[in-house]
Amino acid sequence: MKTRIAILGASGYAGGELIRLVDDHPDLEVTFLGAHTKAGAKLSEVHPHLTGGDRDLQPNNPDAVNADLAFLALPHGASADPAMRLLGNGVKVVDLGSDFRMDSPARYEAAYGSPHSFPEELGKWPYGIPELFGDQLVGADRVAAPGCYPTSALLATAPLQRAGLIGDGTVIVDSMSGASGAGRAAKENLTFGAIDEGVSAYGVLTHRHRPEIEQGLGAVGDVEPTVIFTPHLVPMQRGIMSTCYVPLADGTDAGTIGEVYESAYAKTPFVTVVDQLPITRWIVGTNRALVKPHFDQRTNTAVVVSVIDNLLKGAAGQAVQCANLMLGLEETAGLPMAGWMP
Amino acid sequence: MKTRIAILGASGYAGGELIRLVDDHPDLEVTFLGAHTKAGAKLSEVHPHLTGGDRDLQPNNPDAVNADLAFLALPHGASADPAMRLLGNGVKVVDLGSDFRMDSPARYEAAYGSPHSFPEELGKWPYGIPELFGDQLVGADRVAAPGCYPTSALLATAPLQRAGLIGDGTVIVDSMSGASGAGRAAKENLTFGAIDEGVSAYGVLTHRHRPEIEQGLGAVGDVEPTVIFTPHLVPMQRGIMSTCYVPLADGTDAGTIGEVYESAYAKTPFVTVVDQLPITRWIVGTNRALVKPHFDQRTNTAVVVSVIDNLLKGAAGQAVQCANLMLGLEETAGLPMAGWMP
Amino acid sequence: MKTRIAILGASGYAGGELIRLVDDHPDLEVTFLGAHTKAGAKLSEVHPHLTGGDRDLQPNNPDAVNADLAFLALPHGASADPAMRLLGNGVKVVDLGSDFRMDSPARYEAAYGSPHSFPEELGKWPYGIPELFGDQLVGADRVAAPGCYPTSALLATAPLQRAGLIGDGTVIVDSMSGASGAGRAAKENLTFGAIDEGVSAYGVLTHRHRPEIEQGLGAVGDVEPTVIFTPHLVPMQRGIMSTCYVPLADGTDAGTIGEVYESAYAKTPFVTVVDQLPITRWIVGTNRALVKPHFDQRTNTAVVVSVIDNLLKGAAGQAVQCANLMLGLEETAGLPMAGWMP
Amino acid sequence: MKTRIAILGASGYAGGELIRLVDDHPDLEVTFLGAHTKAGAKLSEVHPHLTGGDRDLQPNNPDAVNADLAFLALPHGASADPAMRLLGNGVKVVDLGSDFRMDSPARYEAAYGSPHSFPEELGKWPYGIPELFGDQLVGADRVAAPGCYPTSALLATAPLQRAGLIGDGTVIVDSMSGASGAGRAAKENLTFGAIDEGVSAYGVLTHRHRPEIEQGLGAVGDVEPTVIFTPHLVPMQRGIMSTCYVPLADGTDAGTIGEVYESAYAKTPFVTVVDQLPITRWIVGTNRALVKPHFDQRTNTAVVVSVIDNLLKGAAGQAVQCANLMLGLEETAGLPMAGWMP
Repeated sequence: MKTRIAILGASGYAGGELIRLVDDHPDLEVTFLGAHTKAGAKLSEVHPHLTGGDRDLQPNNPDAVNADLAFLALPHGASADPAMRLLGNGVKVVDLGSDFRMDSPARYEAAYGSPHSFPEELGKWPYGIPELFGDQLVGADRVAAPGCYPTSALLATAPLQRAGLIGDGTVIVDSMSGASGAGRAAKENLTFGAIDEGVSAYGVLTHRHRPEIEQGLGAVGDVEPTVIFTPHLVPMQRGIMSTCYVPLADGTDAGTIGEVYESAYAKTPFVTVVDQLPITRWIVGTNRALVKPHFDQRTNTAVVVSVIDNLLKGAAGQAVQCANLMLGLEETAGLPMAGWMP
Repeated sequence: MKTRIAILGASGYAGGELIRLVDDHPDLEVTFLGAHTKAGAKLSEVHPHLTGGDRDLQPNNPDAVNADLAFLALPHGASADPAMRLLGNGVKVVDLGSDFRMDSPARYEAAYGSPHSFPEELGKWPYGIPELFGDQLVGADRVAAPGCYPTSALLATAPLQRAGLIGDGTVIVDSMSGASGAGRAAKENLTFGAIDEGVSAYGVLTHRHRPEIEQGLGAVGDVEPTVIFTPHLVPMQRGIMSTCYVPLADGTDAGTIGEVYESAYAKTPFVTVVDQLPITRWIVGTNRALVKPHFDQRTNTAVVVSVIDNLLKGAAGQAVQCANLMLGLEETAGLPMAGWMP
Repeated sequence: MKTRIAILGASGYAGGELIRLVDDHPDLEVTFLGAHTKAGAKLSEVHPHLTGGDRDLQPNNPDAVNADLAFLALPHGASADPAMRLLGNGVKVVDLGSDFRMDSPARYEAAYGSPHSFPEELGKWPYGIPELFGDQLVGADRVAAPGCYPTSALLATAPLQRAGLIGDGTVIVDSMSGASGAGRAAKENLTFGAIDEGVSAYGVLTHRHRPEIEQGLGAVGDVEPTVIFTPHLVPMQRGIMSTCYVPLADGTDAGTIGEVYESAYAKTPFVTVVDQLPITRWIVGTNRALVKPHFDQRTNTAVVVSVIDNLLKGAAGQAVQCANLMLGLEETAGLPMAGWMP
Repeated sequence: MKTRIAILGASGYAGGELIRLVDDHPDLEVTFLGAHTKAGAKLSEVHPHLTGGDRDLQPNNPDAVNADLAFLALPHGASADPAMRLLGNGVKVVDLGSDFRMDSPARYEAAYGSPHSFPEELGKWPYGIPELFGDQLVGADRVAAPGCYPTSALLATAPLQRAGLIGDGTVIVDSMSGASGAGRAAKENLTFGAIDEGVSAYGVLTHRHRPEIEQGLGAVGDVEPTVIFTPHLVPMQRGIMSTCYVPLADGTDAGTIGEVYESAYAKTPFVTVVDQLPITRWIVGTNRALVKPHFDQRTNTAVVVSVIDNLLKGAAGQAVQCANLMLGLEETAGLPMAGWMP
């Protein structure tokens, strides 16, 4: 019998990908689709590309959920209440939002500017990057799935941090994302006319994914590095590339870096160290991440480039990967390994 | 045991999609990958988005093929010889090229300007649109898979022709295709600089898919209509939309047209009549076609819009659909029904 | 001294182009910028790409306009009142909207479904395609600038109609437009996620530009042909290509068609008959139109392809061209002839 | 009488922009167009968007040049010989290539891996960023126009360097460029299929613009900083955004940074300090650069974002700006200040 899955926030881009993945999953089946403004619609009205278009979108009511595990793909701040209700009802939760990612009330308030409504929960939610925190995910009943940018940044830099190779100075994460990362709302700055044929930076020095990256690096090493993070919006639908500049501890060399990355990702089915500079297209449509480290002897800096699909390894795919571990399934079950080109 | 599949011309876009589909197919497995200029390369060098990247590309040598069925994704004129060799060696063949589509030597010469090297074969190759010619495909050992534009045009117009509803006058097929339809070669008119942000018409009145559309319509009705076909190149990777203008027989009305389309596609898993004007994005990534007919009372004309993914229902997907029928498998086996958005 | 120009509806795409053109014009100067929801903003907030960004947007109040000529770039139905006020105040008017394009109350009601508030005006506004109706524009005080699609369709087909070469049957106009044709509003179907990488048809058999095309053809010939018009939205910012299928009078041949087009556009600075199939990129950024006729002997049909920039020759550029004629200036004054590539 | 201008390398993207700008320039006129493989073609065959399409492309022969000033838009290494011939013939030269940018033979060899054929020339060619080195450009007979990335990077960072505010550590320049920066050649990695919908990094730690940036910074301050430069290719035609991370001297604060930038660009017509994060679209089509500095107190780092049009301020536009100064013309003559949107 398949595990019953609820998806709250089913009408957004991540929600659509969750439906697609669960529909294709050998061990999971969708039993509840929740939405906010789109409640009452047929699935075909919000995701005409999916099968089973005559399924109904229900209101996002946690008490109506008939499922063993729920994915929450809700706006910031909207997950906390339904998550706690679902857990209280015995439903496992993977929250794709940011409500439970911070590991302490203080860090949450610093990042989001207001107190958390369930402060005692912070620190109890494993952070859902299986390649870094897989032990905490196996059998868990609640998981905070990471942001798309932190996933790309942490997969690129965590191996150095875990090996104690990050030196003094600032870790710089410079990222580019396709427009789907900005969500599906009809906003003036998200029209085709505004985005096509141009690039922009946003949230410079203020983006909320910066503390998340710092916390993530802190969790895999002794000293939490300071990070500058700059996201850029580029005119494509999907994909994130992060170019990370990491000051190295004295005496680091190219050979060491190569070994650290090779060993970090020797057994991870979705994360691969590559010899050539990767293009986002190579992994769009998959749950994979590609990582390419470089060593700059002139400045004793590592320049590490990583690519993911922001909606899959950066959101819905990784959430399903976490659910697989939570439920005791094969980590790779139901997750695409081959992408699409062109 | 899985049926062994060879793919000749594996390095192109259609070849890549064939590999991806066969790799995911429950009953098929790739046992031979052939290429021309890319022979000797690893698969990862030509299709970095696929799995099994360490597979080798062999020369396109039909006598080296160890397979039960071969897909030929070769340039025009390059299929005839290897196809006949493969058939002689007991290998079934699906030719994605145009070599065996015409049903007579005369029609071939008119369309392609030179005599065919195996004229006696013309007329023996079922034309691979399962929704129109499925009976001829079941158990066949050779199939000529149709062109991408003819697939979209014939799915849009054949129901009217089959019902005898096409009147005097000219059937006009006006199509738009994504750039992958022009292939993968590095040509000046296919650079990003040449294609992005512009549209062009090409092959006006001379495109070789016009006779193919006429022949296809002729095959499902009594009188072969005359067709004007205009393809346009639009700045996107995938997708074809055909807008077809069909003069109607006297007395045709909206109700009749609706019934004709509904009954034509009532039981076809991949072709669906839709109520709303479809967008190519809804089916890109799938083997589906969507068809939306309209009736213009002022001019007694049907305006029928259809959409397909040119590399799937227009090429690799339909080829696998044909192979499924040839091999006695489920028609839908291994073929994607849900697409990708955004 | 320069002629003083007002632009009402300055915050939209056509409004922005009007400002750019008038700012660069040797004989015109902007003295009034009006807007609706953006009234009160600085120009730099709505058009950051323009110079003079500290200019203020005023409310669209015709009585506050201090100008000799006003361009109205307002939504359908919003032009009639301010236009009449402006004319009453002695201000010449070029209306880029559809309010005064129809030549009779009956045609207006048929096209727009409601009676006109100034029915006696209909028929008094010259239709602003200088290449077809230039005589009526010289010295006029009011001009109805045509829609973008009708401009492309009429420039492609009017020479045949004027020469009496259109035969029985239906003229089919199949057009593709960049997304700027849909305006600047933040709508769900205009987001980057909705438009990028896909094409769609819309307004099939119902688009309001169809009667405008029919009327325009009727005005240059004896018999008004019946038209089917299908617009398509393609993923690019600018440009329209119309592919027009025109049934020909008996006995028409390729030579006659060539002569008709050559003589129609022998002296038009902005419209050129070309030998090669044009690409929209060739004229994007200019006020030019390129026209390429073909003759299909098999069906006695002309297939004529035309390209324009929908915001220039299809809107702001043609409006300035009209104003030049109204004001006794050089027809080409201030209008770009060279485009941009890539 | 207008100054006579030759353009060698007229068939590329920068060459096309040079033609367009010179054609529109009040004081310059094109008298010679040179090309390599396209010699013998009409201008309309290589740049169908330009006016005067019946002009002939001559071979790139410097001795045939009848002009007062020549722009060289040639591949790396191809400028040195013709430049010296032209100078010998009394023709002023603006080299858009990299042949004369380095200020010493040693630096040239380090950057390009081979000795220079005219080593004594290195150091004699002013580096053509008027905002930084304008004094050297006025009246010069030879100018090395800078690379597109160095222009964007130096306009973003030079004010800090000139004010002595760059501290110890590495300056990181992370840039994104539209595809026109890669030139017009028909290469496999420049097809629409390869570029659309994906991003890539290239030349990581090895790109030849890195030494050019270092030299440029060295020239405006006391100590030459060490730079890491990473270019990225994004799917758009034009535009560069550089996000620069600059370690600051102790005690620098936000106010100081603001003043330094304001005073640096208080009188530069083409370079503007902006309050909002700029989008490349705002300046595409112009010779402008927009610069937006930020101060990060946590890390004592300046994060400076700049945008230019790579073909204008990054190539042809800046070259004309230099020529204006060389010829004693108004710096802004013939250069576009208003861009295009959408």
